[in-house]
Amino acid sequence: MKINILTLFPEMFDIFSHSIIGRAREKKIVEIEPINIRDFSLNKHKKVDDYPYGGGAGMVMTPQPLVDSIKYCKKSNKGKVIFLGPRGKTFNQELAKELAKEEELIFVCGHYEGIDERVYKYIDLEISLGDFILTGGEMAAIPIIDSILRLKEGVLGKSESFEEESFSYGLLEYPQYTRPEIFEGEAVPEVLLSGHHENIRKWRRLKALEITKEKRPDLYNKIKLSKEDLKLLKNKK
Amino acid sequence: MKINILTLFPEMFDIFSHSIIGRAREKKIVEIEPINIRDFSLNKHKKVDDYPYGGGAGMVMTPQPLVDSIKYCKKSNKGKVIFLGPRGKTFNQELAKELAKEEELIFVCGHYEGIDERVYKYIDLEISLGDFILTGGEMAAIPIIDSILRLKEGVLGKSESFEEESFSYGLLEYPQYTRPEIFEGEAVPEVLLSGHHENIRKWRRLKALEITKEKRPDLYNKIKLSKEDLKLLKNKK
Repeated sequence: MKINILTLFPEMFDIFSHSIIGRAREKKIVEIEPINIRDFSLNKHKKVDDYPYGGGAGMVMTPQPLVDSIKYCKKSNKGKVIFLGPRGKTFNQELAKELAKEEELIFVCGHYEGIDERVYKYIDLEISLGDFILTGGEMAAIPIIDSILRLKEGVLGKSESFEEESFSYGLLEYPQYTRPEIFEGEAVPEVLLSGHHENIRKWRRLKALEITKEKRPDLYNKIKLSKEDLKLLKNKK
Repeated sequence: MKINILTLFPEMFDIFSHSIIGRAREKKIVEIEPINIRDFSLNKHKKVDDYPYGGGAGMVMTPQPLVDSIKYCKKSNKGKVIFLGPRGKTFNQELAKELAKEEELIFVCGHYEGIDERVYKYIDLEISLGDFILTGGEMAAIPIIDSILRLKEGVLGKSESFEEESFSYGLLEYPQYTRPEIFEGEAVPEVLLSGHHENIRKWRRLKALEITKEKRPDLYNKIKLSKEDLKLLKNKK
């Protein structure tokens, strides 16, 4: 997968030199190339922002460098142009899966008080990370790109398997335990040491149901409980 | 504000050397210090993960290095211990404001399939970035720390003012325009050039209402429309 990021802070994307995504880049499974919007400014001082028409606090990103950098990028990247902004669809796992099907993507990171409205006609999709304010689009692009890329084949190793994870089945994950068997006086639940696969599966399902009900009633109310689920919940009483 | 981050990838937090947060660190308004969890492993190979009891894919972070690094960190940081995980409260602007009131915070970043359940008793608060899966807690810690720190006094400069921003009033922002007056044949709306402050204010309010209604009906339905809002919406027809 090839990802270009239009940004005023290309160095921020050095973060993708580390850990799982760093390894995937070394293996050439993914290509991440930031492009500096400022390089496209025709202003003699390489300015990329200006005062808003109509007054008000803050600066607005001027349309020329943004649009020219998008046009340049599109020559070598045929992917969707995604703007990280507050009007966007809230990012979630479903959207991550959808975008992971693409082979190329272009991310556009805004800064300051926003971008000139006339840039929007060059944007295919706006995504919001959530209902909170960031210093710049880079802070949203980073987790979103991470979340998309980890779904690409070959990116995750065996030890980072994504078989049974939160949200994959609409439930939060069951509690995990590893060595030592007793830590600070607290033992691992006996069932996990029993070797009885069926009992372990049921215990984990019950715990996942209980945790989701307690922590995320909104998710819990959306899932359809199976006959087995109802039995597990009933028997525990 | 002093922030410690317990992580297996301290280099990832170099991202806070740039832009607005980088400047605030230089000015000593904020202090960000990552601590490597691996340094606390008593395992001779400095291992920090192991197979889950009860079987299953993936590795689980062992409790010892995590708990010892938390204990070490708490000696010099009296802040809440925040774990970035899927069971957490979903991060939003309200939570950012609440945490921005603190003077010290400790963030704990998990990796692999999760952390040993017995670590939870050392966690004061769990926060989730949203309903999607990341390669590690670092990817959530970064935007969350950014969103909290930008609310600290002195972090934002005048040109990054946070007076009239999305979510601050429960509405998305109105469209912004800056130079040039005509870009690719498209002119700035006349009202913004009129110098008539009252008309500009009304136009912006109407646009913010329209954009929120279109893009985020969930937010729109939560706000209480004023008499003026109703008049603006009626008159536009």
